[in-house]
Amino acid sequence: MLFAVTMQIEFPHDLDPEVRADLLARESAYSRAQQEAGTWPHLWRIAGQWANLSIIDAEDNAQLHDILSNLPLFPFMTIDVKPLTRHPNSIRN
Amino acid sequence: MLFAVTMQIEFPHDLDPEVRADLLARESAYSRAQQEAGTWPHLWRIAGQWANLSIIDAEDNAQLHDILSNLPLFPFMTIDVKPLTRHPNSIRN
Amino acid sequence: MLFAVTMQIEFPHDLDPEVRADLLARESAYSRAQQEAGTWPHLWRIAGQWANLSIIDAEDNAQLHDILSNLPLFPFMTIDVKPLTRHPNSIRN
Amino acid sequence: MLFAVTMQIEFPHDLDPEVRADLLARESAYSRAQQEAGTWPHLWRIAGQWANLSIIDAEDNAQLHDILSNLPLFPFMTIDVKPLTRHPNSIRN
Amino acid sequence: MLFAVTMQIEFPHDLDPEVRADLLARESAYSRAQQEAGTWPHLWRIAGQWANLSIIDAEDNAQLHDILSNLPLFPFMTIDVKPLTRHPNSIRN
Amino acid sequence: MLFAVTMQIEFPHDLDPEVRADLLARESAYSRAQQEAGTWPHLWRIAGQWANLSIIDAEDNAQLHDILSNLPLFPFMTIDVKPLTRHPNSIRN
Amino acid sequence: MLFAVTMQIEFPHDLDPEVRADLLARESAYSRAQQEAGTWPHLWRIAGQWANLSIIDAEDNAQLHDILSNLPLFPFMTIDVKPLTRHPNSIRN
Amino acid sequence: MLFAVTMQIEFPHDLDPEVRADLLARESAYSRAQQEAGTWPHLWRIAGQWANLSIIDAEDNAQLHDILSNLPLFPFMTIDVKPLTRHPNSIRN
Amino acid sequence: MLFAVTMQIEFPHDLDPEVRADLLARESAYSRAQQEAGTWPHLWRIAGQWANLSIIDAEDNAQLHDILSNLPLFPFMTIDVKPLTRHPNSIRN
Amino acid sequence: MLFAVTMQIEFPHDLDPEVRADLLARESAYSRAQQEAGTWPHLWRIAGQWANLSIIDAEDNAQLHDILSNLPLFPFMTIDVKPLTRHPNSIRN
Repeated sequence: MLFAVTMQIEFPHDLDPEVRADLLARESAYSRAQQEAGTWPHLWRIAGQWANLSIIDAEDNAQLHDILSNLPLFPFMTIDVKPLTRHPNSIRN
Repeated sequence: MLFAVTMQIEFPHDLDPEVRADLLARESAYSRAQQEAGTWPHLWRIAGQWANLSIIDAEDNAQLHDILSNLPLFPFMTIDVKPLTRHPNSIRN
Repeated sequence: MLFAVTMQIEFPHDLDPEVRADLLARESAYSRAQQEAGTWPHLWRIAGQWANLSIIDAEDNAQLHDILSNLPLFPFMTIDVKPLTRHPNSIRN
Repeated sequence: MLFAVTMQIEFPHDLDPEVRADLLARESAYSRAQQEAGTWPHLWRIAGQWANLSIIDAEDNAQLHDILSNLPLFPFMTIDVKPLTRHPNSIRN
Repeated sequence: MLFAVTMQIEFPHDLDPEVRADLLARESAYSRAQQEAGTWPHLWRIAGQWANLSIIDAEDNAQLHDILSNLPLFPFMTIDVKPLTRHPNSIRN
Repeated sequence: MLFAVTMQIEFPHDLDPEVRADLLARESAYSRAQQEAGTWPHLWRIAGQWANLSIIDAEDNAQLHDILSNLPLFPFMTIDVKPLTRHPNSIRN
Repeated sequence: MLFAVTMQIEFPHDLDPEVRADLLARESAYSRAQQEAGTWPHLWRIAGQWANLSIIDAEDNAQLHDILSNLPLFPFMTIDVKPLTRHPNSIRN
Repeated sequence: MLFAVTMQIEFPHDLDPEVRADLLARESAYSRAQQEAGTWPHLWRIAGQWANLSIIDAEDNAQLHDILSNLPLFPFMTIDVKPLTRHPNSIRN
Repeated sequence: MLFAVTMQIEFPHDLDPEVRADLLARESAYSRAQQEAGTWPHLWRIAGQWANLSIIDAEDNAQLHDILSNLPLFPFMTIDVKPLTRHPNSIRN
Repeated sequence: MLFAVTMQIEFPHDLDPEVRADLLARESAYSRAQQEAGTWPHLWRIAGQWANLSIIDAEDNAQLHDILSNLPLFPFMTIDVKPLTRHPNSIRN
C-alpha cells in the first residue's frame, strides 16, 4: 500500500556540527536500509530545496508511522502524507 | 528528467453529460498513450480525491508543458509542478 | 485500518430541488449501509457547518477511495484524509 | 458533548533531556487518567506526524478547556477544536 | 455555554430579487426571535463587510448546530465557530 | 465604539519564571482595571487555546491602540482587530 | 478617525453590459461625492489590479460601515479594513 | 524600471468559443506590440499552467498599470506585481 | 511615484535592551528625516499592532529599495510593497 | 532550460558578524561566477525585501539543484522554483 510522503528539513543554525554530521550519517544509513527492504521504493530530491518526495510502501498506517517516526531527522522534519491507490487510467497493475 | 505533478480536477456541475463522457474517454486514451511512450512513468490516485500524483519524464520544461497542456482535462485542472532530481541517499542510479 | 476524513459539502444554489432531494436520500442510504457494514464506525456533524468528521475503517487505501468516491455527494464535497494509527498513550488495543 | 481536538506538538531542539522525559511521562499519565475517566474516549496518532486526533467528551466548554489546558505538553501544542454533534445519517443514538 | 460565531454572507449575483428579499426578511425575523429567546445574546456587524460576529448561548453543541443550521441564510454563509469559556482575568462571574 | 479583538499569546520556552510570573500578574491587574473602567466590556477564553476574544469599547482608534499596546503581554501577542457596529437585525440599541 | 481600506472588485463575466456601465457610473459619482465631503481623503489604484487602497475618514465605525456598504460596487467587492492611528514617529499632528 | 508580473488566466467554461478565439487573438497581438515597443522585455510560460512570468519595463507605476489593465485577457487574470531593482551582486549595469 | 508599504516589526525577546533602545532611536530619526525630505508623505500606526502603513514617494524602484533597506529596523521587519497609481475616480490630480 | 527562482533570505539575529560577513562575501563571489558562466542570466532585487528573483539556465533539474544547493546562503534561504518554457506569444526564439 503506497503513500506519497513529502519531507521538508529545517535545522537550527546553532546545531552542534558533530551532532549534525552524526544525524545525517544515521539518516543516510536508515534510508538505504528501508530502500533495500522494499518499504521505500522511490526517493527523489525536490530541486532547489532541502526536501524530498518519497513513495513509502507499508502494510498499513501503523507501519507507515513506524517508518517515518524512526527517521533520525524526524524531529527536524515537516512531513505531509497522502494515501495513494491505483489510478483507473494506469497501465500498471 | 523527472517532475512530480499533482493534478486536481474540478468539473462544473452543469457540464453536458456527453461532453463530460467524451472528455473522460479522451483523457484516458491520452494518459495511456503517454504511459506507453514512457513519458508518464507513474500515475497514482490520491485516495479520497478526484486528483492524482504523477511522475512525468520529459526531456525538458518545454516537453513537460506540452504533455500537460494537451491533457483533455487541462482546462478543468489545478496543476502543481515540482522538478525532481536524484536524492543523494537513493540506492538507485 | 482507520482514516480521519473530513467532508465539507457545497451545493450550487441553482441545483434542481428534485435532483437535490434525490442526492440527499441516496447519500443517507449509502452512509447507513456503510455504517452497518462496519466500514464507517464514526460519523459526527461539525457544529455550525454542512460538514462532517468521519472515521473510516478500510482494509487499505484502495477500499478507502472506493468508499469515498462512491458517495452520492462526492462531486459536491471537499474531502481531507488523514491516516490514523494507534497512539502509544491510548488505553485501547 | 463531543469535541474533535487536533494536537500538534513541537519541542524546542535544545530542551533539557530530563525535562523532556519528565514532560512525556506526565503527559502519558494524564492522558491515561482522562481516558479512564471517560472524558477522552478516542485518541489516535496521525500517521507520520507528532500529532494526534482526539475526541473529548466534556460537560461543557469550561470542562473542555480545563482538560486541554492542564495537559503537561499544552505549552508546546498547537490545538484546533471543533464542536461535534450527532449527524442525522448516523445509525447511533 | 457561549460560542463566538462569525457569519460571512455571499449571495449569487443572479439570485431572484424576490427570493432574496424573502430570505432577508425571514433571516431578520429568525434572528430577532433567537435574540428574544436569549440564545443569541450579542449580534454585531463587522464594519465594511456583509458579515457579523455573534455570541450564541446554547445548552450544548446540538442546540448550537440547530440554531445555526436553521438560519434562512445558512446556505449562503461561511461560518466559523469558536467555543468560549470564562477567562480567569474576567471580573464577571 | 466597539472592536472585536482576538489575542493569541506565545511565550518563549526559556523565559525566566520570575519574569513570566511578574508579566502574568501585571497583565491580570491591567485587564481588571480596564474592565472596571468600562473599556473592556467582554473578555472570554477561547477554549483549548492560550487566547481570548475581547470586546474593547474605545472612543476612537487611538484609544484602542493605547489600551492594546500597553498590555504587559503585548510583546508576546498576535492581535487581530475588527471594528464593529450595530447590526440592523439587533434588538439592542 | 482614519481607516485603511482595500477594495478588490470582481465582476461575473456574464453581467449585463448596461447593468455594468450603470454600476460603474454610480460608483464614480458616489466616490467623488464622498471625496468632496472629506470622508474619503485618499484613493489610489493598486497598479496591475482592479483594486484600490483608500483612506476613509469616519467619525466612528458606524459611519465607516455606512460609507462602505453604500458603495454601488459593494456586492462585487472583497473589502479589508484596518483601523489607523497616529504613528509616534510621524511629523504630522 | 522593471516589474516582475505573474499572470494566471482562468476562463469560464461556458465562454462563447468565438468570444474566446477573438480574445486570444487580440491578446497575442497586444502582447507582441508591447514586446516590440520594448515595454515587455521578457515573457515566459510557466510550465504546466495557463500562466506566465513577465518582466515589464515601464517608466513608472502609471504606465505599468496602463500596460496591464489594457490586456484583452485582463478581466480573466489574477495578476501579481513585484517591483524590481538592480541586485548588488549582479554583473550587469 | 507612490508605493503602499506595510511594515510589521518583530523583535527577538532576548535582544539587549541597549541595542533595542539604540535601534528605536535611530529608526525614529531616520523616519523623521525621510518625512522631512518628502519621500515618506504618510506614516500611520495600524491600531493594535506593532506595524505601520506608509506611503513612500520615490523616483523609482531603486530609490524605494534604498529607503526601505536602510531602515534601522529593516532586519526585524516583514515588508509588503504595492505600487500605486492615480485612481480614475480620484478628484485629485 | 530556464527556471524562475525566488530566494528569500532570513538571518538569525545572533549570527556572528564575522560569519555573516564571510557568508555574504562568498555568496557574492559564487553568484558572480555563475553569472559569468551563463547559468544565472538574470538576477534582480525584489524592492523592499531581502530577496531576489533569478532566472537560472540549467541543463536539467540536477544542475539546477546543484547550483542552488551550493549557494553559501542556501541554509538561510526559502527558495521557490518554477520551470519556464517559451511562451507562444513571445517574439523571441
